[in-house]
Amino acid sequence: MKKDVKKVVLAYSGGLDTSIILKWLQDEYKCEVVTFTADIGQGEELEPARKKAISLGIKPENIFIEDLKEEFVKDYVFPMFRANAIYEGEYLLGTSIARPLIAKRQAEIAAMVGADGVSHGATGKGNDQVRFEMGYLSMNSDLVIIAPWREWDLNSREKLLAYAEKNGISIEKKPGKSPYSMDANLLHISYEGLVLENPAAEPEEDMWRWTVSPEKAPDQSEVIEITYEKGDPVALNGVKLSPATMLTKLNELGCKHGIGRTDIVENRFVGMKSRGCYETPGGTIMLRAHRAIESITLDREAAHFKDEIMPRYAKTIYNGFWFSPEREMMQAAIDKSQEGVNGTVKLKLYKGNVSVIGRDSKTNNLFNEAFCTFEEDEVYNQKDAEGFIKLNALRFIISGKNRKKQGKA
Amino acid sequence: MKKDVKKVVLAYSGGLDTSIILKWLQDEYKCEVVTFTADIGQGEELEPARKKAISLGIKPENIFIEDLKEEFVKDYVFPMFRANAIYEGEYLLGTSIARPLIAKRQAEIAAMVGADGVSHGATGKGNDQVRFEMGYLSMNSDLVIIAPWREWDLNSREKLLAYAEKNGISIEKKPGKSPYSMDANLLHISYEGLVLENPAAEPEEDMWRWTVSPEKAPDQSEVIEITYEKGDPVALNGVKLSPATMLTKLNELGCKHGIGRTDIVENRFVGMKSRGCYETPGGTIMLRAHRAIESITLDREAAHFKDEIMPRYAKTIYNGFWFSPEREMMQAAIDKSQEGVNGTVKLKLYKGNVSVIGRDSKTNNLFNEAFCTFEEDEVYNQKDAEGFIKLNALRFIISGKNRKKQGKA
Amino acid sequence: MKKDVKKVVLAYSGGLDTSIILKWLQDEYKCEVVTFTADIGQGEELEPARKKAISLGIKPENIFIEDLKEEFVKDYVFPMFRANAIYEGEYLLGTSIARPLIAKRQAEIAAMVGADGVSHGATGKGNDQVRFEMGYLSMNSDLVIIAPWREWDLNSREKLLAYAEKNGISIEKKPGKSPYSMDANLLHISYEGLVLENPAAEPEEDMWRWTVSPEKAPDQSEVIEITYEKGDPVALNGVKLSPATMLTKLNELGCKHGIGRTDIVENRFVGMKSRGCYETPGGTIMLRAHRAIESITLDREAAHFKDEIMPRYAKTIYNGFWFSPEREMMQAAIDKSQEGVNGTVKLKLYKGNVSVIGRDSKTNNLFNEAFCTFEEDEVYNQKDAEGFIKLNALRFIISGKNRKKQGKA
Amino acid sequence: MKKDVKKVVLAYSGGLDTSIILKWLQDEYKCEVVTFTADIGQGEELEPARKKAISLGIKPENIFIEDLKEEFVKDYVFPMFRANAIYEGEYLLGTSIARPLIAKRQAEIAAMVGADGVSHGATGKGNDQVRFEMGYLSMNSDLVIIAPWREWDLNSREKLLAYAEKNGISIEKKPGKSPYSMDANLLHISYEGLVLENPAAEPEEDMWRWTVSPEKAPDQSEVIEITYEKGDPVALNGVKLSPATMLTKLNELGCKHGIGRTDIVENRFVGMKSRGCYETPGGTIMLRAHRAIESITLDREAAHFKDEIMPRYAKTIYNGFWFSPEREMMQAAIDKSQEGVNGTVKLKLYKGNVSVIGRDSKTNNLFNEAFCTFEEDEVYNQKDAEGFIKLNALRFIISGKNRKKQGKA
Repeated sequence: MKKDVKKVVLAYSGGLDTSIILKWLQDEYKCEVVTFTADIGQGEELEPARKKAISLGIKPENIFIEDLKEEFVKDYVFPMFRANAIYEGEYLLGTSIARPLIAKRQAEIAAMVGADGVSHGATGKGNDQVRFEMGYLSMNSDLVIIAPWREWDLNSREKLLAYAEKNGISIEKKPGKSPYSMDANLLHISYEGLVLENPAAEPEEDMWRWTVSPEKAPDQSEVIEITYEKGDPVALNGVKLSPATMLTKLNELGCKHGIGRTDIVENRFVGMKSRGCYETPGGTIMLRAHRAIESITLDREAAHFKDEIMPRYAKTIYNGFWFSPEREMMQAAIDKSQEGVNGTVKLKLYKGNVSVIGRDSKTNNLFNEAFCTFEEDEVYNQKDAEGFIKLNALRFIISGKNRKKQGKA
Repeated sequence: MKKDVKKVVLAYSGGLDTSIILKWLQDEYKCEVVTFTADIGQGEELEPARKKAISLGIKPENIFIEDLKEEFVKDYVFPMFRANAIYEGEYLLGTSIARPLIAKRQAEIAAMVGADGVSHGATGKGNDQVRFEMGYLSMNSDLVIIAPWREWDLNSREKLLAYAEKNGISIEKKPGKSPYSMDANLLHISYEGLVLENPAAEPEEDMWRWTVSPEKAPDQSEVIEITYEKGDPVALNGVKLSPATMLTKLNELGCKHGIGRTDIVENRFVGMKSRGCYETPGGTIMLRAHRAIESITLDREAAHFKDEIMPRYAKTIYNGFWFSPEREMMQAAIDKSQEGVNGTVKLKLYKGNVSVIGRDSKTNNLFNEAFCTFEEDEVYNQKDAEGFIKLNALRFIISGKNRKKQGKA
Repeated sequence: MKKDVKKVVLAYSGGLDTSIILKWLQDEYKCEVVTFTADIGQGEELEPARKKAISLGIKPENIFIEDLKEEFVKDYVFPMFRANAIYEGEYLLGTSIARPLIAKRQAEIAAMVGADGVSHGATGKGNDQVRFEMGYLSMNSDLVIIAPWREWDLNSREKLLAYAEKNGISIEKKPGKSPYSMDANLLHISYEGLVLENPAAEPEEDMWRWTVSPEKAPDQSEVIEITYEKGDPVALNGVKLSPATMLTKLNELGCKHGIGRTDIVENRFVGMKSRGCYETPGGTIMLRAHRAIESITLDREAAHFKDEIMPRYAKTIYNGFWFSPEREMMQAAIDKSQEGVNGTVKLKLYKGNVSVIGRDSKTNNLFNEAFCTFEEDEVYNQKDAEGFIKLNALRFIISGKNRKKQGKA
Repeated sequence: MKKDVKKVVLAYSGGLDTSIILKWLQDEYKCEVVTFTADIGQGEELEPARKKAISLGIKPENIFIEDLKEEFVKDYVFPMFRANAIYEGEYLLGTSIARPLIAKRQAEIAAMVGADGVSHGATGKGNDQVRFEMGYLSMNSDLVIIAPWREWDLNSREKLLAYAEKNGISIEKKPGKSPYSMDANLLHISYEGLVLENPAAEPEEDMWRWTVSPEKAPDQSEVIEITYEKGDPVALNGVKLSPATMLTKLNELGCKHGIGRTDIVENRFVGMKSRGCYETPGGTIMLRAHRAIESITLDREAAHFKDEIMPRYAKTIYNGFWFSPEREMMQAAIDKSQEGVNGTVKLKLYKGNVSVIGRDSKTNNLFNEAFCTFEEDEVYNQKDAEGFIKLNALRFIISGKNRKKQGKA
């Protein structure tokens, strides 16, 4: 029972799979197809996508190619890093954070061109389908969503290739193309499939596309300084940089020094465990640096509250609920805490390690040398600690006395 | 106004500071002093402490020297690592976790020898005073606590040395002794003071006593395999090891490969920020390994609940509340979750990096290859995802329709 | 595409809807049907269900009628009340807590009789379908589940009645039968549908079936005393009672005094808001009484930790995840806290009000009169409060000094 | 060792205790005393306080009497009620919420008059000392704080009276004055001491000063309608009211109908349990009404997130940390959620009961009748529930299959 749809905006990469989808949409839904290709830093030429789209019969005015890198880093990546977000202790949410932006823009283009449908190339087993569709429905709950992987019967590589061949879609692989299922943007690149489907097995070294291995990284460490304003990195080694440029530069540094590889088994929202390998070079540096600048500028209880809601915040993003009221509530709390997170962090990069070696804040330094010395001072009176401890222990003292009364001590 | 006390059990290291305290207790309180020196893996000979105590007039039957290493790792370190506990995103709680055990044993000795008081050498500015005293009062709420650093006027290094000299306490430093304020046990060694009091400054390389630097670590990586039972590591490379031996071996491996250095500014319970450097070589390996074995054996929501209560659990230990009802409640929940955390983890150690390269479980593997392939399967029906997404999105659809009705979409 | 199933255990009430399902299963699936009717205190005769089943062709050995009241209260209701569980601030989870038990028993019967399928009469719009099916799948993940309301085309009252008539199923209503959609068990009775679908409208007085209105309740208040052991009520006015008897008696008292009516709009797990009216007379008394006995016997931080995880615990039950690892983890924590929750509570019942007028514990009273008097005492030294406050305020003092330094104070 | 202070702003009620403090400050500290008396709705004439102050030698320009009722309700009470804040399941925080405002204003007056000190009449055993002093120190960390109850030796009623007599302070009680230790403001009145120090004993009826008992309340119920804007009540029965007027009117209604009495044992921040009786008539109505308007206008996950942080929010206020970064973070999240909380609630008041009988929202109603009917509809497809349930259950299915493989099912 096909849905009724006239014009569909497709998230289009220009690759084989979304080209097949493009064709399939035309054939099965008899609908007009609008392609949307976003540059979010995946590191691929986008003009070939235009050519390919035209070759598949898409009208030039129906081809949208946009550079979203600055918006991506400024409005998605940076807010997320203010929270020190990590999913399940390991994953920096590189794919999760990019989907909402693409979905939002796709829905906006649908409104502009008068489309009544949207489509994406995510499979029916993963998280991305959820992230895309939550994004669409948050923007416009009337959009018809077409998820070909859940609908068609092209459910094997062989059938796909046969379909492509039959429809004149070129299936030649670029030389050197990875055999893994991959996703990339300015924050990270991910790998799934093949040997990774056995969590006991190590991936081969040449799977990793961005970073050098720690073993091959320079023998010489490198020290960098990042400047923070309201919790966001704004300058590198004293040079002001736009958000996307900042992340690009940090990626270069991380890649050079073998920083940011992770190999994990994670829990998908749709219910199964899945193995993924990730490279998040700049993000790994930012996470450490942000915690370091917070360590001298952020109030203790503000920091602890952030830590306590962080797992929920990370899960919310992982599961695809970026545009939800609960994410906005948590963001409001987090952003409130970042007003005083200003200063600089010095880091040493060396063969996979990111070490904090200094942090400073001219304006918001809550670290007070005077409090830590072993000599007298007038601000902190050691005798105060006795009362502090006694009242904190009072509940134990009372229950202890009760146990004694009961002869149970 | 001195407290009335007859017999005091002192946590005694044999070093200068606690020797001064020993003398000061005898002089100021006119009380009998019992010394308690615990081996929790700090890596120092303890027999000199006995000699020193005798030289200060302590009766042989009042000198207690005990090896608590196995109890320490089995009943304190391992339960804590089941929780993946980290304080403020960075600190593995190496000092925090040792204090309760010492305090508990001190209170038990007090009961054995009929002492009415206990004393420790922690200053009035730190967390350790709280941890000791919470431990004492949890065990026996009637104990008189003497915290000399909060009471005496020996509040400068000069006065202390003068007092020692006057009382014939040897003040000669061991050659090569560190100028930093340090604490060590089988889980970690910590450094405070001196240059560290400026959080913008990097400590000199020779401060670190346990690990080699990543730079000086071997150029050859090393692969190890850890076996887990109910969330605890029980074998290394297939060889069963007792808890303390396990941690000792992991420390050796970590030290050799430059693993486990941290340099942080943390928030003390008593209210100020403080800079500390830590080496936790074996603990750093265990944290990563434990998360890895959990990643294939632990249910998703169990894992997420653990992550959500972890910051509170870590804070509870950091603040000194190990023996509290709330820690026991959280431990009960955590331990419940670990029944199925059984299997092996393979890790690669290289110049400061601990990389997971494989995890397996013969008995509790919840990772199912079949679910991840891109081919058909009978367990997971991709079409189910549509209903899953639709109902998860229903609240957005409804609020979207309401916004449209209001002309606000 | 019908599922292949040979023998199905149906949760059977004996009413019209499940009788239609029974027939429909026989016709559509050509399968043997086993009926399971549980007495969980819904207050209806069960033998008519047997007769009805036989009249529909069920073999006597395929009819299971069981009294689960004691198990229901002891292993489901009481553990839940230890947590002071309330969903969304108002709902005492009366329906949610009964479904897992029925589902579990249904799966056990399936194992006993060699059935490969299970079926229930919950609609496709509610929470109960989730609760039933989570229960089934937690017990036996291979069971085929048949949810007729999601499958058939009898999707209107008219079609249902026509189907019944065609198949000779009696559709005569019992005189006085409520027109509302209802569910009842020993913990509560619920109402949905009709006027309740307009949340601005008040239900008519005669909708309520169990309690008298506060207006019609006795003008004379009644004082009762409940005795608690390990967090569970074990005696009423000094008389020991089994769990089910206890709840029955408390229901009688609550009904008599107009206690426990609630009228709410709640958020269903499947995504929409829904209006429900509930009567939970005994449960409303128990909630208040349990908090009262905890108030003098439970440690502060244990109580606060319970309060902080309670909303999640309640949601877990509401959504149908009783048999989940996360519920078991939370339960382990909660049960740990209840070891000392022993004592008695005196309550006054009057026209809808449950007022605590006294609590006492011979063994675990942590309330200490001496601490509260305004006279001197030796346990609590008021001067200790100064140090306590100062160190708690230290972070404000430091940030205040920093603001002044910055000229921002 | 007296602190050095020249001019002290005293929180002055005009009663016996603070009059003694006034005199004691003059005598002991030889300082100039400035009195500050706030009208926060405690229901007492304030001009007598002026006379009394003058009689004790305070200069007219050093006497500050201010009406803070509107600020109190608008900026403290209402924001707190947006959170549905309840401490330990029962306490509506009536005293806790008033202290920060008084402390803040006291610190502001200190700045205006050039005072270097502040003083309050709270004892050393309670929470109020913490709340006052946290407020002072948050405003100005340099203020000298004088807490006479922790300093002087007037630690019995007898010594206090003797001091008063000696210094010519009138000790005659107003006729009918309560023997309980009380605190009142527009939100509530509290009682402590005397018979309440035995938690097993019920207070006598005439302790309660504000409300009639449910027994004496009218036999006729009363229906009211409250209008909400952004989570705050703005109109009663269609009449717009200022915040303080709103609360005053709701108090009148509550008092008339016997609403809002609570009798609890609570856990103080300073470590002991304490018995308190409270009357919060208007607040009790507002709590219920606010939850009701949220029930149709607030997103489910926003509501659940609010519920999960509420206990921490309530504790933060209870413990005196209103002006803390963590409270501001939580408030930012809560306020963010209230943008759509607009509409009306109808409530029935009757003999202690507040029953919601209707809720409506012209602009933000997320309750959709269409979703709840048992007939077909196009928005919600019952078949979607199958996929929803299956994927939610997938983790149980997988672990079940694993158990079977292990022969453990």
